[in-house]
Amino acid sequence: MAEKIGFIGLGVMGNGMARNLLKAGFDVTVWTRDAAKAETFKGLGASTAATPKALAAACKLVISCVPDAAAVHGIALGEDGLAAEGWKGGLLVDCSTIAPFEAQEIATSLKEAGADFLDAPISGGKKGADEGTLTIMIGGEEAVVARAQPAFAAMGKNIHHVGPQGAGQALKACNQLMVAVNLMGVCEAVAIARAAGIDPKVMREVVSTGTGRSGVLEGHGLRYLEGTLQGGFRAALMKKDLGIATAVGAHYGRYQPAAGLAHQLMTGLCNAGHADLDNAALGLLYDKLNGWQGDAS
Amino acid sequence: MAEKIGFIGLGVMGNGMARNLLKAGFDVTVWTRDAAKAETFKGLGASTAATPKALAAACKLVISCVPDAAAVHGIALGEDGLAAEGWKGGLLVDCSTIAPFEAQEIATSLKEAGADFLDAPISGGKKGADEGTLTIMIGGEEAVVARAQPAFAAMGKNIHHVGPQGAGQALKACNQLMVAVNLMGVCEAVAIARAAGIDPKVMREVVSTGTGRSGVLEGHGLRYLEGTLQGGFRAALMKKDLGIATAVGAHYGRYQPAAGLAHQLMTGLCNAGHADLDNAALGLLYDKLNGWQGDAS
Repeated sequence: MAEKIGFIGLGVMGNGMARNLLKAGFDVTVWTRDAAKAETFKGLGASTAATPKALAAACKLVISCVPDAAAVHGIALGEDGLAAEGWKGGLLVDCSTIAPFEAQEIATSLKEAGADFLDAPISGGKKGADEGTLTIMIGGEEAVVARAQPAFAAMGKNIHHVGPQGAGQALKACNQLMVAVNLMGVCEAVAIARAAGIDPKVMREVVSTGTGRSGVLEGHGLRYLEGTLQGGFRAALMKKDLGIATAVGAHYGRYQPAAGLAHQLMTGLCNAGHADLDNAALGLLYDKLNGWQGDAS
Repeated sequence: MAEKIGFIGLGVMGNGMARNLLKAGFDVTVWTRDAAKAETFKGLGASTAATPKALAAACKLVISCVPDAAAVHGIALGEDGLAAEGWKGGLLVDCSTIAPFEAQEIATSLKEAGADFLDAPISGGKKGADEGTLTIMIGGEEAVVARAQPAFAAMGKNIHHVGPQGAGQALKACNQLMVAVNLMGVCEAVAIARAAGIDPKVMREVVSTGTGRSGVLEGHGLRYLEGTLQGGFRAALMKKDLGIATAVGAHYGRYQPAAGLAHQLMTGLCNAGHADLDNAALGLLYDKLNGWQGDAS
């Protein structure tokens, strides 16, 4: 019989993930402070719990997908948290993006309460969450990963157990680092193209058939050049993720000048008032520093 | 009747390009200082010329593919160059990678000698040159591009007229800039992955399905991690191309911190004795600066 699943964090990503668990036939209990969301999920067949502590009493496997490490910490170890009265045999699968060492600390505390932990950050955006095609990067023990496998299979398509506790978060940091570094290259190439009298959309199309191609040139490049910067993955979250990537590098004493530069530029973009735009809005900062006053393209 | 074509620069790229022109039925004359190469091409049905000046007398359309701007300048405007005695009705199609303003200067001088010029740098490597599937980025006047179109069709697959004289070189600079910037991201992600206990080859595979994916992660990433750094596109040439990209940016006063950083790192790699390795050897510089002493992966 499939394990009962608790779910915390019915946001942009979690909403689709919890729905896919219900669709796959899991007995799902949600905890949310939002009464309207609770009603919606009741209507879909979910149960609700009053606190994470109550959720832990009802379910031995809980999935969380929340904005930051403080939120994960509160859910797991807070006064009304999952482990508030111990949680023998429990398992928290955390799909949030936090630092590897933060994941490891929470894992250690949960272990003392009798519970396991997996870091399992996700990639693929709202579309991937809604369609159940997420990439999931998992750090933790083999047997614990096996326990959560049915739940992963309901939410994602590319499911990778990449190493020990924290490794999932480290791999997510690698992805985010490359996104942000590649984005600097796109912004600088657009500036050169414009200066030289080349339509940057043509530049994007030509290079997309060449060695300079990237997911960022395709996606971010298009959103930057078309000015479609509302919604999407917010610059504030990319800044947070680059903070994690550079902290991981610093923790291990690694040399990472490009990641550091990307972190600084994304910080500047947020400080300049664009924290809530798609992170492709880094192009706007470059435009400013290049004196670009033209139209979107 | 197809125009007679002269060809200069039977190197790694030019060799395949000239062969494809012959295969397509063009009457080709080559100029080379290398007697063995001259014999080889005679065997393939080509004629030979004693100097570029003699080549210009035999052919009104000449294609060049040489290492740098000095070589293009010598071929076009030197003592025994194409235009040494004027070259009315001539057209030089230069497939070398040089700076846009160098291309423009040569174009201006050739115009005075009665000849046209196209900058037409290429991308796609030896494989693309041999198979006739190059990406060709062309700058120049529409009518002149049309004149060279049959030759382009014999050598390439993705043929893009992207703007005025110099625009082909500027677009090539955009491509090279993004390659080198993306490469920094790959090297820094590999360092984080290793530090966190993740197999960097696994990191590469997982991210290749995610938003951090790129042609460089696929190609350069594999060569770096497998240590296959002999042959390929030399670091010395990437350093030269980044010199062009940053010079173009500086010429127009553009802000390009990532390209500048990539140029410095590639310069350091060359100075450290790795100028003749594939440019993916940038990973070796990162390894050194990270104290990495492990095996290839």
